[in-house]
Amino acid sequence: MRHSQLFTRTRKDAPKDEVSKNAQLLIRAGYVHKEMAGVYSFLPLGLRVLENICRVIREEMNAIGGQELLMSALQKKELWESTNRWDDAVVDNWFKTKLKDGSDVGLGFTHEEPLTNIMTQHVSSYADLPKLVYQIQWKFRNEERAKSGVMRGREFLMKDMYTFASSQQEHDVLYERVAAAYVKIFNRLGIGESTYRTFASGGVFSKYSHEFQCVSDVGEDTIYVSDAKRVAINKEVLADDVLADLGVSREELQEKKAVEVGNIFSLGTRFSDVLGLKFKDASGTDTAVVMGSYGIGPSRLVGVLVEMLSDEKGIIWPKEVSPYAVHLVALSGGNADIQKEADRYYDMLQENGIGVLYDDRDVRAGEKFADAELIGIPTRLVVSEKTIGAGGVEVTPRTNGKGTLVAESDIIDRLHDR
Amino acid sequence: MRHSQLFTRTRKDAPKDEVSKNAQLLIRAGYVHKEMAGVYSFLPLGLRVLENICRVIREEMNAIGGQELLMSALQKKELWESTNRWDDAVVDNWFKTKLKDGSDVGLGFTHEEPLTNIMTQHVSSYADLPKLVYQIQWKFRNEERAKSGVMRGREFLMKDMYTFASSQQEHDVLYERVAAAYVKIFNRLGIGESTYRTFASGGVFSKYSHEFQCVSDVGEDTIYVSDAKRVAINKEVLADDVLADLGVSREELQEKKAVEVGNIFSLGTRFSDVLGLKFKDASGTDTAVVMGSYGIGPSRLVGVLVEMLSDEKGIIWPKEVSPYAVHLVALSGGNADIQKEADRYYDMLQENGIGVLYDDRDVRAGEKFADAELIGIPTRLVVSEKTIGAGGVEVTPRTNGKGTLVAESDIIDRLHDR
Repeated sequence: MRHSQLFTRTRKDAPKDEVSKNAQLLIRAGYVHKEMAGVYSFLPLGLRVLENICRVIREEMNAIGGQELLMSALQKKELWESTNRWDDAVVDNWFKTKLKDGSDVGLGFTHEEPLTNIMTQHVSSYADLPKLVYQIQWKFRNEERAKSGVMRGREFLMKDMYTFASSQQEHDVLYERVAAAYVKIFNRLGIGESTYRTFASGGVFSKYSHEFQCVSDVGEDTIYVSDAKRVAINKEVLADDVLADLGVSREELQEKKAVEVGNIFSLGTRFSDVLGLKFKDASGTDTAVVMGSYGIGPSRLVGVLVEMLSDEKGIIWPKEVSPYAVHLVALSGGNADIQKEADRYYDMLQENGIGVLYDDRDVRAGEKFADAELIGIPTRLVVSEKTIGAGGVEVTPRTNGKGTLVAESDIIDRLHDR
Repeated sequence: MRHSQLFTRTRKDAPKDEVSKNAQLLIRAGYVHKEMAGVYSFLPLGLRVLENICRVIREEMNAIGGQELLMSALQKKELWESTNRWDDAVVDNWFKTKLKDGSDVGLGFTHEEPLTNIMTQHVSSYADLPKLVYQIQWKFRNEERAKSGVMRGREFLMKDMYTFASSQQEHDVLYERVAAAYVKIFNRLGIGESTYRTFASGGVFSKYSHEFQCVSDVGEDTIYVSDAKRVAINKEVLADDVLADLGVSREELQEKKAVEVGNIFSLGTRFSDVLGLKFKDASGTDTAVVMGSYGIGPSRLVGVLVEMLSDEKGIIWPKEVSPYAVHLVALSGGNADIQKEADRYYDMLQENGIGVLYDDRDVRAGEKFADAELIGIPTRLVVSEKTIGAGGVEVTPRTNGKGTLVAESDIIDRLHDR
């Protein structure tokens, strides 16, 4: 992509009403546009980041046998009344509206009910189980306050997987399989080190659920971490019996602020009992399906990555997420030969399958460098009179800002290594 | 994908309240699930079809310089009041709801307003124009009646492109560029022959808009077609002056029912005037941007393709859209050697990059064939004792049902040709 063609511009200041660092940087760099508190549109660079995050998640969900579908946002009242989750006294963040005939509909804030209902048409025998089904879809929650940028949206993208098992034992295996996939996802997204599988409150069917909590000063949650034992406990369940369960003492735990980036939950038969999702077991007996649900928020992760991976100059995307692999900067100073040489590199990189944002604009070097640092593509390539004289380009990682000259013949290998 | 693993099942009958042929077939084959009238969830096979349609559209939008973004569904009242499109008396199919603080928000039924507003932050000079910007996003319209299956949804997927030009002349070039891309899209989707660029009513800024109308008995629109001149006119604008404009007489026109599958519209400065989207021209004068909008509904197209391309046995997907390229059917009759041979073909096809739905189920041949015809993948491959004896597989196009034996050594070339 030529920067001169890209319709978005960087800007010096974020809107005054934007208090979160992630949204400030994302707006300044042209990744998102704020529609209202907690509602953001994703501009071309931002959509690429969001889709890269979704790609990583999708690959790991498919790798464990996940089948992707896409459910509707509009939800009918009757289905949610049957599980007692329609009433605003029970679920206080519904967006609700009405059809022309006056009947109530809501905007899905999660999808256990509709998917359980769908599965009743497709599961009847133990041979149909287990199944892992997921979607990546926009959800709506009428948040009272929405001051965390894209980290807490009234409209936000969610990957939600649901598992369907014939027994608690089979469920437990699926639960650990999804948990392992989540670890892979957070590693690939560059926040594996900071992210802890954290014990949190369970429900009727299990003592605990698990959250994946990413340690960060902007976190809204408080967790207790033992780095030595690589275990963490949400403050809400910190109690002597939990410590005994996990074999840790209060002394070895450190209190940290953290952001929830994923959660996994055993649902037991709460939904399948009510909605009639059952199967005939090997002996022909009707049995309720054992379910689990597993969430990760891709749009929230865009914000978390910016909070975790940025410096005073701007964003520093991890490789798997960056909108482009390389930011190619031409410093031509109006010299057509240098511009032509930069054009040649642009073509060469693209022919080799390397995604490039090419700053071909007629602006001064300082502005180009400042924009490249703000936008945060991990590798910057500079073509200038100096680099041409030395037979190559200057390659600078966004992480340390240290440029080295790389010969033209080595550049593709060097970039593929990254 | 192994059919034995796919969580959806085919079914003999559609729900009784489903009156449209497209939804009946799509539900029976396991492509969609009806949540309520006009609201469908897309199951794994259906999501693949929908994404294939989006891929075709995206490729053609990118080829003409389109930049993709993704705007929010939630829309704030004030923005739409400024263009006089908030009031229910003006736009009668809004879904509206409220934030916790009582302020009104709507669910986007189109996106001229928010995108024009976004562009005010990124366009300031004639050098910033022209720009083509699009999204593929779920939209919401509170339809009074929704009886056309996935062809008319209360919640539906829309590709909407908007163009931004510095003059009417520049706009006209963009308009024709998008129109040409639309022709390519409908050709690739297999309905090019039946789809006419149709003159329809314009607005303040142009005498006509254009609809792409696909001739079909289930169409809700009436158009008048001259096949010789490859021109069509929507009934709503059929008048003597229009006929004179187009140089056709009433006698050469045939009345047809048609479904609108796309529309393109010159907006002039209707939105840019009100929302302040202007640029400095070469002489430094503030000038309003000239806009156009261009829609295609991918979820509607799923339904249109089923209506257009199906027979009494089921769906017949065009190649670009089919959820898989090949439906591989093992007729093992319980013989493990035949199953193993079919497994080998399954692996071979996948290794050669050919998408396969593999019917490895332990059900009788008649059921497998009926399901293959219902699901509608364009090419069926059968592995049986007979085909193994003859050293190959039977290849049968869904269109004509005529099988031919193809040697194993020729099969990959043969499939790549299709």
